[in-house]
Amino acid sequence: MNPRVLNISASLIREIASKKRASSIDLGLGEPTLRPRREHLEHALRHVSEHGLRYTPNAGDSALRDRIARHYSYPDREHSRNVCVTVGSQEAMYVVLKTLLDPSHDELLIVEPAFPSYAKMAALEGTAARSVAMSRDEDFAFDPERIAAAIGERTRAIVLCSPCNPTARVVSLAAAETLARALERREGDPIWIVHDEIYREQTFTESAGYFAQIYAHTIVTNSLSKSNALTGLRLGWILGPADFVAQAIKVHAWATSCADTFAQHVALDVFNTPGGLQEHAAWYRERRVELLAALRESGLRFVAPEGAFYVCVRLPDGTPSHRAAEELIERHDVVAIPGVAFGQCMEGWLRLSWVAPAERVREGILRIADYCRNRAQAIQTV
Amino acid sequence: MNPRVLNISASLIREIASKKRASSIDLGLGEPTLRPRREHLEHALRHVSEHGLRYTPNAGDSALRDRIARHYSYPDREHSRNVCVTVGSQEAMYVVLKTLLDPSHDELLIVEPAFPSYAKMAALEGTAARSVAMSRDEDFAFDPERIAAAIGERTRAIVLCSPCNPTARVVSLAAAETLARALERREGDPIWIVHDEIYREQTFTESAGYFAQIYAHTIVTNSLSKSNALTGLRLGWILGPADFVAQAIKVHAWATSCADTFAQHVALDVFNTPGGLQEHAAWYRERRVELLAALRESGLRFVAPEGAFYVCVRLPDGTPSHRAAEELIERHDVVAIPGVAFGQCMEGWLRLSWVAPAERVREGILRIADYCRNRAQAIQTV
Repeated sequence: MNPRVLNISASLIREIASKKRASSIDLGLGEPTLRPRREHLEHALRHVSEHGLRYTPNAGDSALRDRIARHYSYPDREHSRNVCVTVGSQEAMYVVLKTLLDPSHDELLIVEPAFPSYAKMAALEGTAARSVAMSRDEDFAFDPERIAAAIGERTRAIVLCSPCNPTARVVSLAAAETLARALERREGDPIWIVHDEIYREQTFTESAGYFAQIYAHTIVTNSLSKSNALTGLRLGWILGPADFVAQAIKVHAWATSCADTFAQHVALDVFNTPGGLQEHAAWYRERRVELLAALRESGLRFVAPEGAFYVCVRLPDGTPSHRAAEELIERHDVVAIPGVAFGQCMEGWLRLSWVAPAERVREGILRIADYCRNRAQAIQTV
Repeated sequence: MNPRVLNISASLIREIASKKRASSIDLGLGEPTLRPRREHLEHALRHVSEHGLRYTPNAGDSALRDRIARHYSYPDREHSRNVCVTVGSQEAMYVVLKTLLDPSHDELLIVEPAFPSYAKMAALEGTAARSVAMSRDEDFAFDPERIAAAIGERTRAIVLCSPCNPTARVVSLAAAETLARALERREGDPIWIVHDEIYREQTFTESAGYFAQIYAHTIVTNSLSKSNALTGLRLGWILGPADFVAQAIKVHAWATSCADTFAQHVALDVFNTPGGLQEHAAWYRERRVELLAALRESGLRFVAPEGAFYVCVRLPDGTPSHRAAEELIERHDVVAIPGVAFGQCMEGWLRLSWVAPAERVREGILRIADYCRNRAQAIQTV
């Protein structure tokens, strides 16, 4: 068998999540607990009942590609040729990294804390990957100087997720501009920015930066999973320069052929519905207010979430996050994801999601605060 | 960019298909023209309306994995752990080849004529691939001795499609046994057989061989695309030994996360419906009878189809198939796929599909016969 596959380790996130009991308060979840709007699904069913469930072109239904490109209207990315419809944003990212990077030479720079998929995808391809850690002392804020300084001779792409899973930080327009200008000043081959925008519709700041607006060598990945509670639909896309997308379509074509036609018609209906992508945005804004109240009540140290539906909380000094997550399940029946799953720089922290009912989220946070107090006392006693 | 991606050439099949006019008789199609049964789709919609469209586990819904394994009941492949649900059989094959073969060392042996995807997938991974050609003088019958003799020192897997796209041949149980025994007699690491069973429900012979029944190192890929006219649903699976499937799930997880939850519920309904996979089998049997009548009427030399929904017809000696396909569209308004798209051994042949209405298929075949007669006369005159 392929040693690169054998060497991929099991997922720490899944290991923790698998310990959940029926009674557990689940703050580990990476998907909305909302329901998708039934009308979109019924629209798609009507279409496929009438027209059958045939293949679309590899790159996706051309009307959908066009709608996606025009919705975002990023410079030089406004046409169907700038879009490849994919099997969720997971396949979008997989295809982008595979298309972009030459495993024999290139290196991927991962801005951490980061969801582990980027590193695993690079490992599967045999592509070198290095990470640049945002500082816990700055609440993991995106730091353009630090990112630019980490670029190596072989770095050809930088991947970042903003709004960020796990930190819930959002790259500001100012920070994005600083990084873009630093990349433009460099000589030699351009360095690509791969901007994972999957939490775009859960943005709670006014100053968010979008690299595709300001930097020519940007590729965007996104999907309907988080915006519309459609994780299981597996409908995402790549948005980039036409010549890049033409190459990405080849990888997509041989890896999965095309995205589900039913799912593409759901997406068409979402994009054709005014405000369709924002249909759950108000719900998230309200939950966030309640979350912040619960966090302040708890006394925990946390990073104020600017986006996504996570929040990072600090464990008492010297508490390994993996152990804390295990003890939280065992003793307090709360599922939380250890920070170390997202990079060494998040060791000593937990990632909580706040998509469960508000009262459950509050109760879970208070239990974690209890755990932290007990733990801090135990450390002092020793 | 990744040179392996840049080097992937455009698809000859797509090039020809793209020349189709509104008036054309399309014998190039690789998908059923039937409609899927609406009940399966409605069942899935009811489920997702009630339960939302959440992720399934990476390997797929466990009830579906179990139903698939038990449906086929291949020895040592009868449990959910033997199944990974994938994004169609395209992703199934992609994941299998990526999991199985070490690009730094292993070689894939492709039994030709073959659909070009196997070679393209190997090229994308940087894995060496070689082909072994079945003989046109034996109507491209699967020849176990020829396959076994082609095995090289680094061959670790043999991929074949039976019923075959493009030849419509089916490997007989006797031929499968001969190959399996030859592989078992070899010393050293086992050689895997990857059996692409996507046309299993279009089998018109009594003596079909299934490698998973008789050879321990077999991996099967399949999907609902051709059996249930669900090409656009993108729902397939890998069926193999549990320790192999555990590794394949990792590749699948990082490439696409999981298959569409809606599609998985369609599949559950198909597998829970008695005879659900055979719902179009009678239609294909009837079309085949009409096809054979038209072929005999035409005077063309053809390979009698034992499976799938294709038929291979011979062009006059010295006629390049690419040129013939282009002339057929230009002069006779018929789309047919040049044999050379499936390997050099099928040069001088065309692949026709027969999923269009019977009268159109007959008309197309008669036009091709006309073309061949004209061409043969022209060659004689020269």
